[in-house]
Amino acid sequence: MAVIYDRIALVGLGLIASSMYWAIKRGGLAGEVTGYARSAETRDIAREIGLCDRVCDDIGEAVRDADLVVLCIPVGVMGATMEQIAGSLKPGATVTDVGSVKRDVIEQVTPHVPPGVHFIAGHPLAGTEHSGPRSGFAELFDNRWCLLVPPEGADAGALAQLRSLWMGMGANVEEMDADHHDLVLAVTSHAPHLIAYTMVGVADDLRRVTDSEVIKYSAAGFRDFTRIAASDPTMWRDVFLTNKDATLEILGRFTEELFALQRAIRQGDGEHLFDYFTRTRSIRRGIIEAGQDTDAPDFGRATRK
Amino acid sequence: MAVIYDRIALVGLGLIASSMYWAIKRGGLAGEVTGYARSAETRDIAREIGLCDRVCDDIGEAVRDADLVVLCIPVGVMGATMEQIAGSLKPGATVTDVGSVKRDVIEQVTPHVPPGVHFIAGHPLAGTEHSGPRSGFAELFDNRWCLLVPPEGADAGALAQLRSLWMGMGANVEEMDADHHDLVLAVTSHAPHLIAYTMVGVADDLRRVTDSEVIKYSAAGFRDFTRIAASDPTMWRDVFLTNKDATLEILGRFTEELFALQRAIRQGDGEHLFDYFTRTRSIRRGIIEAGQDTDAPDFGRATRK
Repeated sequence: MAVIYDRIALVGLGLIASSMYWAIKRGGLAGEVTGYARSAETRDIAREIGLCDRVCDDIGEAVRDADLVVLCIPVGVMGATMEQIAGSLKPGATVTDVGSVKRDVIEQVTPHVPPGVHFIAGHPLAGTEHSGPRSGFAELFDNRWCLLVPPEGADAGALAQLRSLWMGMGANVEEMDADHHDLVLAVTSHAPHLIAYTMVGVADDLRRVTDSEVIKYSAAGFRDFTRIAASDPTMWRDVFLTNKDATLEILGRFTEELFALQRAIRQGDGEHLFDYFTRTRSIRRGIIEAGQDTDAPDFGRATRK
Repeated sequence: MAVIYDRIALVGLGLIASSMYWAIKRGGLAGEVTGYARSAETRDIAREIGLCDRVCDDIGEAVRDADLVVLCIPVGVMGATMEQIAGSLKPGATVTDVGSVKRDVIEQVTPHVPPGVHFIAGHPLAGTEHSGPRSGFAELFDNRWCLLVPPEGADAGALAQLRSLWMGMGANVEEMDADHHDLVLAVTSHAPHLIAYTMVGVADDLRRVTDSEVIKYSAAGFRDFTRIAASDPTMWRDVFLTNKDATLEILGRFTEELFALQRAIRQGDGEHLFDYFTRTRSIRRGIIEAGQDTDAPDFGRATRK
């Protein structure tokens, strides 16, 4: 593959940034990749494991002369960080982000974008429940979607270049409107995460069923919930605070629907339950056909430790 | 390994029974394994793929002379099936089941157990979202728990023999009281399944977010929910109808907790959210330490198709 940007700066060195670094290296997509993290400990780890060609102690130094700056930080601090780096950006540079919410990030960041700098919001739909500089791996974006939310009248060249980078890292790229993005993600990610956090919290509270039993006998179902509920707390706090309306709307619908199913259970309405469960099965089939999950009969367990 | 039962009859040939067959063969744990399924199509598939040493068209023939009969059928039909086979059982035989609910199954089955036959309820905590005779694999029970719920004054020899079979199939075995079992499972499996079914149903209903987008952009979180919500509808209908009280109790607590988190989102109480999400993380760590899930940074994805 060809070099797409001479210099890329990764601001924040967690799961997404570290995966981007390894994917950029795998594809030979950048001349140099600089990295910055607020925490000295994270920077030390990055240096130790060879994450980034150069780790900078100063954020201004990290972004200076970068052709692309990627904000890989919690959604809540995007605006303040943009304000901080604005004076150090090279004219003509592109700034993008990887936040899970787009309307709020765009509103935070846009006022601080200097003239001549292109801001194109982005969101790779990829992740694991792990976080920190050691959690990344080059394959994270392979065959996943990256959604780009360019501003009206975005520079076509800057957009094409950013698109090429994501494709070079293995992702499929689509453009989307910010509000639509936030609603789609509220359904497919934000509400499910809050629900998983809630269910795990309930289990934790139950006194009659001790912690050790919940853990010991965690069957499929709860086990998947605990994985989701182990995701980074700061990131998710910010997601819910900044995508409040869409998340609350989906949760409202969810509660309505849950009450209807609870009533069916209470009334012994087996037909209602059976029909509901049959319908949800078909959605799963669609996801497998879309190549977004595996259909291995053992979930690949046999090949895992 | 040594033969534990001369003859085992599997009644019902879905995911659990077919996995049992392959695990029994792997361990050389039985002289002969007979199989019966109500559906002629299932029996044909079983014969085609070599599932069971002998597939019988008649349930009485399948259980005749069996030293162990395993009821691998939906919870709702356990009593009627026991009534049907009672007259064909060999004196001294053991009957067990693999249902996800224990109090209700014991109440259904016990009245039909003939004198001299031992009924010991059981529940292997293992599964995938797949069902049917083709879905089984020998490793399903490896390092999973099988919970046995023996009646008061159970025959010690019969219990020890059944325990040996499950251990031979790779499982760890514990004994538990029926009501406690049903509560633990309501927390770790039944409520999470209903919640996952509900969330997938909500997504299906949403008109603004089209089906194809929900499927296309299904991120971690929703994707896991759809897997859970693809489980066998008949089995799950019966679980909710027969473990009604414990499931509704847990769902009640869940709703309370969800409302508290929704309020925190609405009020912008980031501290509450952060603390909650931090607490749920530790439960996940416990599950990984207990060996009930993998901690691979990529969920084993790299080794999967």
